[in-house]
Amino acid sequence: MKQVRLGIAGLGTVAQGALDILAKNGELIAQRTGVELVVSRVASRSPKPGVDLLGGQFTQRVDDLLGDDVDVVLELIGGEDQALELIERALDKGKAVVTANKAVIAQSGNELLSRNPQVCLKYEAAVAGAIPIIQAIQTALVANEFHQVVGIINGTCNYILTAMQERGQAFADALADAQALGYAEADPTFDVEGIDAAHKLTILAALAFDTPFQFDQVFVEGISHVTAKDIEYADELGYRIKHVGIAQAGEGVVEARVHPALIPKEALLANVNDVANAVVVRSDAAGQTLYSGPGAGGSATASAVLGDVLDLATSEGAAVPSSRGLDAAAGASRGRRYLDISEVHCSHYLRIPVRDQSGVFAQVANTLSEHDISIEAALQKEPSDGNDAVDIVILTHQVREDVMDQALRTLGAKLAELDVARGDVSSIRVEALA
Amino acid sequence: MKQVRLGIAGLGTVAQGALDILAKNGELIAQRTGVELVVSRVASRSPKPGVDLLGGQFTQRVDDLLGDDVDVVLELIGGEDQALELIERALDKGKAVVTANKAVIAQSGNELLSRNPQVCLKYEAAVAGAIPIIQAIQTALVANEFHQVVGIINGTCNYILTAMQERGQAFADALADAQALGYAEADPTFDVEGIDAAHKLTILAALAFDTPFQFDQVFVEGISHVTAKDIEYADELGYRIKHVGIAQAGEGVVEARVHPALIPKEALLANVNDVANAVVVRSDAAGQTLYSGPGAGGSATASAVLGDVLDLATSEGAAVPSSRGLDAAAGASRGRRYLDISEVHCSHYLRIPVRDQSGVFAQVANTLSEHDISIEAALQKEPSDGNDAVDIVILTHQVREDVMDQALRTLGAKLAELDVARGDVSSIRVEALA
Repeated sequence: MKQVRLGIAGLGTVAQGALDILAKNGELIAQRTGVELVVSRVASRSPKPGVDLLGGQFTQRVDDLLGDDVDVVLELIGGEDQALELIERALDKGKAVVTANKAVIAQSGNELLSRNPQVCLKYEAAVAGAIPIIQAIQTALVANEFHQVVGIINGTCNYILTAMQERGQAFADALADAQALGYAEADPTFDVEGIDAAHKLTILAALAFDTPFQFDQVFVEGISHVTAKDIEYADELGYRIKHVGIAQAGEGVVEARVHPALIPKEALLANVNDVANAVVVRSDAAGQTLYSGPGAGGSATASAVLGDVLDLATSEGAAVPSSRGLDAAAGASRGRRYLDISEVHCSHYLRIPVRDQSGVFAQVANTLSEHDISIEAALQKEPSDGNDAVDIVILTHQVREDVMDQALRTLGAKLAELDVARGDVSSIRVEALA
Repeated sequence: MKQVRLGIAGLGTVAQGALDILAKNGELIAQRTGVELVVSRVASRSPKPGVDLLGGQFTQRVDDLLGDDVDVVLELIGGEDQALELIERALDKGKAVVTANKAVIAQSGNELLSRNPQVCLKYEAAVAGAIPIIQAIQTALVANEFHQVVGIINGTCNYILTAMQERGQAFADALADAQALGYAEADPTFDVEGIDAAHKLTILAALAFDTPFQFDQVFVEGISHVTAKDIEYADELGYRIKHVGIAQAGEGVVEARVHPALIPKEALLANVNDVANAVVVRSDAAGQTLYSGPGAGGSATASAVLGDVLDLATSEGAAVPSSRGLDAAAGASRGRRYLDISEVHCSHYLRIPVRDQSGVFAQVANTLSEHDISIEAALQKEPSDGNDAVDIVILTHQVREDVMDQALRTLGAKLAELDVARGDVSSIRVEALA
C-alpha cells in the first residue's frame, strides 16, 4: 500500500478535525483509495496535551515539517505571513502543499502556483469549506464556458441575515448572538465587512474565468448597513437579502463583487440559511448547478483538506498535474480585464426615508427619470412610529453604477433642499436568480 | 499538446451535445487542461447530415471505434445489450470508456469495472446529468464515512409532482403535459415507476457504502398512485411530496429504496422543482452537502461525459487509476448486507377515506395502536363533494415496514367489516430532512 506522510502545520480546529477523521476513517480511506495517510509531524506554537497526534512527532518549529519524513505539508496555521512563508519553503523543497488559507491564495496564489510547477499546491478548503466547488469548476465542469458564479460564501453574514429575517432582529443584536454562538469573532470586521468573502470570490472568479487571482479588483461591501426594515420590505417585494459574492464575464471583461443582494425568494440560493454556504454556477453546457453545505467548521474544512491530500496522492505521476498553475489560463482568459464597480450594471433596491408630504414621491421618480433610471416596482410605507417619516421603496431596472451614484447624489441634494429627507438612503443591489 | 482521440458511439442528443461543446469550447478546453480532444470516429445506425462531426469519420459499425485511431470510446447509444457489448469489447481492447448509461452500470457495472483493471471506465453522466455527484462521493468526500444519500434523481417524476403541487393537477394530466413538453416518453413506465431512479440509486448506494452494485436489492415504487389530494394534505402538514432515491447505512446493513416521500417544505431538497435533480449527502466529516442541477438533456449530460474524458486524460499514468473497481470496496464495506424493504423503518403518511361517521377515527387510531404504531399528527378532512366520505390523514412515527403492512391489512379488514371504507388507503413514506 502506498504511504503518504503528512506534516501538519497548526493544531487549531481544522488540524484537530483532520486528526479526528484520520483516527476514525484512516482504515476506510486506505481501503477505498489504496493510500495510507500517516501523520509524520505536527507543528504548533504550543502543544495540546489532549490531542492525539496519531503517532506524529510534535514540534514547535515548522521547519521540522520540511524534512525527509514528510511528503505533503498541510498548512493549517491560518494568518498570512507565517503561512505564506511555510508554503513557499515547502514548495521550494519539492513538497506538495494543501492549504485552507483563502487570504494567502487570494493574495499570493499567482506566485505560489507558478513557483514550482512540478509540485502540487491544492486549496479546495479555502472556499466554502466542505463544498467541492473548486473541483467542480476545475474538473467536472472543465468543458464548460462559465457565465456566472454566485455564492453565499461567508457563514457569519448568512447567519446574521437569517436571524434578522427570521426574528426581525437588528444587525447589532444578530451580530451579538452570532458572537455568543461562536459564529462571529470578537472583532467581526473581516467577516461582516466582506473581506473574507472577497478572498473566496477572488479564487472562484480566477478559476471560472481563467484569469490570475486579482483580489484588489474585487469590489467589497459588507452587511452592517442592512436594516431590519430593508429585510421586511424585501420580503414584501418577494426577495430575501443575502450576502453574496458574484463573478460574471462579459465580452472581454470580468466583474467580481461582494455585497448584500436581494435574491428572489423562490431561488434555491435564497433558501440557504444560517451558517450554510452555497455556490451557484452558470455555464454554457451544464446550465445552472448549485453546491451547498457547511462553509466552515473544523471537521467540514478538514474533509476538504483530506480530499485534496488524497486527490494529489492518487494522481501522482499523472500526465497533467492536478493543481494547475494559472499561466495556462492566460490564453484561455482571452485578455479579460476586471471591471471597476462604477462600470457594472445592476438593478437596485432603494429605501428613501422622507417626510410624509404630497409631491415627494413624484420628486423622487422625476430625479430617477432624469438619470434614465426606470422603476420596476415601488412601495410607499406608512409612518410606523407616529412621526412624520415614510419610506419610499423602489426597485429599479438595471443601471450602471456610476449613473446610480450620481442619481443618488442629486436626489439627496434635492430632498435636503426641500427639507424632506428623514435619514440616509439605503441602496442594495438586486440579483435575478432562478 | 497531448491529443486524445475520441470514438463516439451514437448520434443522439448527448452525442450531439458533446460535438457542440467541442466545436464551441474545444480550444478553451485545450488551453485549460493541456489536452486536445479530437473526434476521430462517430458511429451511428444512420448518418445525420446536419450534424458537424468535427472531422470525425462517420461509420455505421461500432467496431470501427475499436481501431488504433481511437483512445477513448464514448458510449452514448443508450439501451442495454448493444451498449454493454461495446463497452466490453472496448475495455478488452484496452480503450478507456466513458458512458452515460445508468442501466448498464447498475446491472453490469461490477463485471465491467473489474474486467480490465488497467483501463478506465467512467460514468459520471449516468447519475443526475451535469451534477458531479459521483466525483463528490469518490474524490472530494472520500475521507468521509457516509451516512445517507437522498436524491431527486428523476426529472420526469419531479416535473410531474411539481405540476401537481403548483397547479393542482391530477397525475394523468401532469403526465400528459410532461409528454407534450418532451419531459416524458410516450411509454413513461421507466421513469414514473421509478426504474430509472433505481438504476441511479444503485450506483450512488454502491459508491457511498463501498458495496458492489446491487440493482435487485433496491426497493422501487413509482408516483402513479400519488393523488392531488395527497399533495394538498402534505402541504397542510408542512411537506412537499418528491420522488426520491434514499440509500443509508446502519450497523452492517444498507438500505436502498426509491419511492415518493414527504419532505419538510423548508428543506432545500423540497424546493428543487420541475425537471431539476438534486442529491443530498450526509457524511461524518463534511456534514450535509447538496448538489443540484439539470439531471438530463443533451448538453448537460455531455458536460459530464467530457468532464470524465478530461479527467481520465489528465490523470493518465497516475498512481491510482481514476476509475476504481469495486473489489477494493469489499474491505471497506465491512460485509454490509442490503436490507429487504420489510425490515426498513420509516414514518408514514396515511390517507384513509372513510364514511363520515362517529367512532371511525377511534377505530383507526386503535388499530394503529394495537400494532404499536404511534401517531405524530392527524387531520380529519370534511367531505368535499357532498358525499358521505371523509379523509382521515395521519402521520405516524417510525415503524418497521412489515408491521405497517400488517396494520394496514388489519385496518382494511376492519373498515370493510364496519362497511365504512370509501376507497383505498394511500400510504406514502416521510423523510425528515434538514
